[in-house]
Amino acid sequence: MKKQPNITAKSIREARERIDHMVHYTPVLHSEAISKVAGCDLVFKCENFQKVGAFKARGAANAVLKMSPEERRKGVATHSSGNHAAALARAAQVANIPSYIVMPSSAPQVKRNAVEGYGGIVIECEPNLKAREEGLKAVVNQYGATFIPPYDHIDVVEGQATCALELLETYRSLDFLIAPVGGGGLLAGTALATKFYSPNTKIIGAEPEGANDAKMSFEAGYRIPVQTPNTIADGLLTSLGKLNFEIIFKNVDYILTVSDQEIISAMRLIYERMKIVIEPSSAVPLAVVLKNKNLFANQNVGIILSGGNVDLAGLPFKSS
Amino acid sequence: MKKQPNITAKSIREARERIDHMVHYTPVLHSEAISKVAGCDLVFKCENFQKVGAFKARGAANAVLKMSPEERRKGVATHSSGNHAAALARAAQVANIPSYIVMPSSAPQVKRNAVEGYGGIVIECEPNLKAREEGLKAVVNQYGATFIPPYDHIDVVEGQATCALELLETYRSLDFLIAPVGGGGLLAGTALATKFYSPNTKIIGAEPEGANDAKMSFEAGYRIPVQTPNTIADGLLTSLGKLNFEIIFKNVDYILTVSDQEIISAMRLIYERMKIVIEPSSAVPLAVVLKNKNLFANQNVGIILSGGNVDLAGLPFKSS
Repeated sequence: MKKQPNITAKSIREARERIDHMVHYTPVLHSEAISKVAGCDLVFKCENFQKVGAFKARGAANAVLKMSPEERRKGVATHSSGNHAAALARAAQVANIPSYIVMPSSAPQVKRNAVEGYGGIVIECEPNLKAREEGLKAVVNQYGATFIPPYDHIDVVEGQATCALELLETYRSLDFLIAPVGGGGLLAGTALATKFYSPNTKIIGAEPEGANDAKMSFEAGYRIPVQTPNTIADGLLTSLGKLNFEIIFKNVDYILTVSDQEIISAMRLIYERMKIVIEPSSAVPLAVVLKNKNLFANQNVGIILSGGNVDLAGLPFKSS
Repeated sequence: MKKQPNITAKSIREARERIDHMVHYTPVLHSEAISKVAGCDLVFKCENFQKVGAFKARGAANAVLKMSPEERRKGVATHSSGNHAAALARAAQVANIPSYIVMPSSAPQVKRNAVEGYGGIVIECEPNLKAREEGLKAVVNQYGATFIPPYDHIDVVEGQATCALELLETYRSLDFLIAPVGGGGLLAGTALATKFYSPNTKIIGAEPEGANDAKMSFEAGYRIPVQTPNTIADGLLTSLGKLNFEIIFKNVDYILTVSDQEIISAMRLIYERMKIVIEPSSAVPLAVVLKNKNLFANQNVGIILSGGNVDLAGLPFKSS
């Protein structure tokens, strides 16, 4: 086996050092006002301030830097229209290698521009999964590029784990740590880092009701992919990856779900009181806290704000 | 004369110490991305993260704390529906004295809630200047409360000066410092702090075209109040105060104006690239930089982001 088979305490720390020149050590913010509303002591790890505006910069950087020189020379590829596409293009740009991003023709121009702004080569395809997979296969065959998937990949998960590592280095007595869950890369990495560095901290996955496959899978003990996901938290539409499910099933304490209305209320509270821009996915953990105040009462709670890439023209706030 | 007649280097430093327990020492952010767009090296002093979400917390705190114990016992009063109302109510709350805020009946419920949330006593009046002034006079007569005006007051200006002091303590080689100008309290305080602590830094007032009385007054050499102000920068609708005009006329280098469209573009850039929430008034200085790139090329430029209290349901961003 070429890849290191396991993520360990040591390998997460090494990943943090590996990607140090590529990512921000993001700040942790407090909010007295929101802590008061929630009835617990909240700290927020701000990946909205991360490079490319999301935690995805970590996993992409780690995956690129773990490739052999020969692999790297041929570049990297993925199919994505979201934060991973921009994160991979940027990691490749910093590493001075080509990146090939297969994108559906329906992707917004602004996402295409982001990828091309980082020097990524966009390959357009029909807007369906089959066309995306075929487009990816063609690029991999033609250039010998290495496919870096958005979440279900050991080096990606290891990279995402560096986010919780940074938080736990400073905040050593968290009772709970909550991360949003979609494909599960961030939650799996968070669970492993916490298991190694703060074993008494309970780990919670925060999920939208409209894409609750992690909760269903977690309860069933096997993966149940989501059929027709529907939520404002557009970063969490995907189903849990296979590797990620295994890690999450073993290491996460609860998966808790919230409605879109609860997500929007939490998001608004963060904009109003913390004066920071987050994407809807980032608001899911706070929504979970506000919905389950008894569980968190007077506890020290860490929340990962996963990103800040939001359509500013379509913010979901109504006049109050 | 009861009040100290002048603002000095020493008095600004004393004000900073005086209000220290009441306000945040706000962070200064960089943005590589925006500096690249602007062609100069920008730093942003983030008063959007200040208590009550705006620099107004400083002046109100300083004014309250400079009152005599006897004056304080009788409380403070003002007429305002904006950030000053909330700032004064909060300063009074921390000082454990009453505050009377005369507000037009047309003021949004959310602003009323903010004042009452800080323990302020709201006195409703008809929505016109005469009614506001009469309402204020009645409160002052009835309770003996001290009127703390929103900007044209020496202790308020001295308090606002602490913001630039903090910035200049850390950033010692700014070529320019830019603050928005409405009533002029922030700009006057900024100009004085800069004159004392960084005399080689040029001071610029940034003003909306639709409320350009500061520019007109600055050029004429006497105060010309704005007649029908109209701008998205709703914190800058008021005309320059008398005291503030004198300070600004003597100590500011330029007043530069921008259109609402330019303000919205700058505001969007800050939301998108810095992931922080600001009110339109805060975007006016960056709009000035982007409109006058030659003036600022390759210079070190400080910008004061004055506040973050914005109607989230009415953000001016269109689909791109």
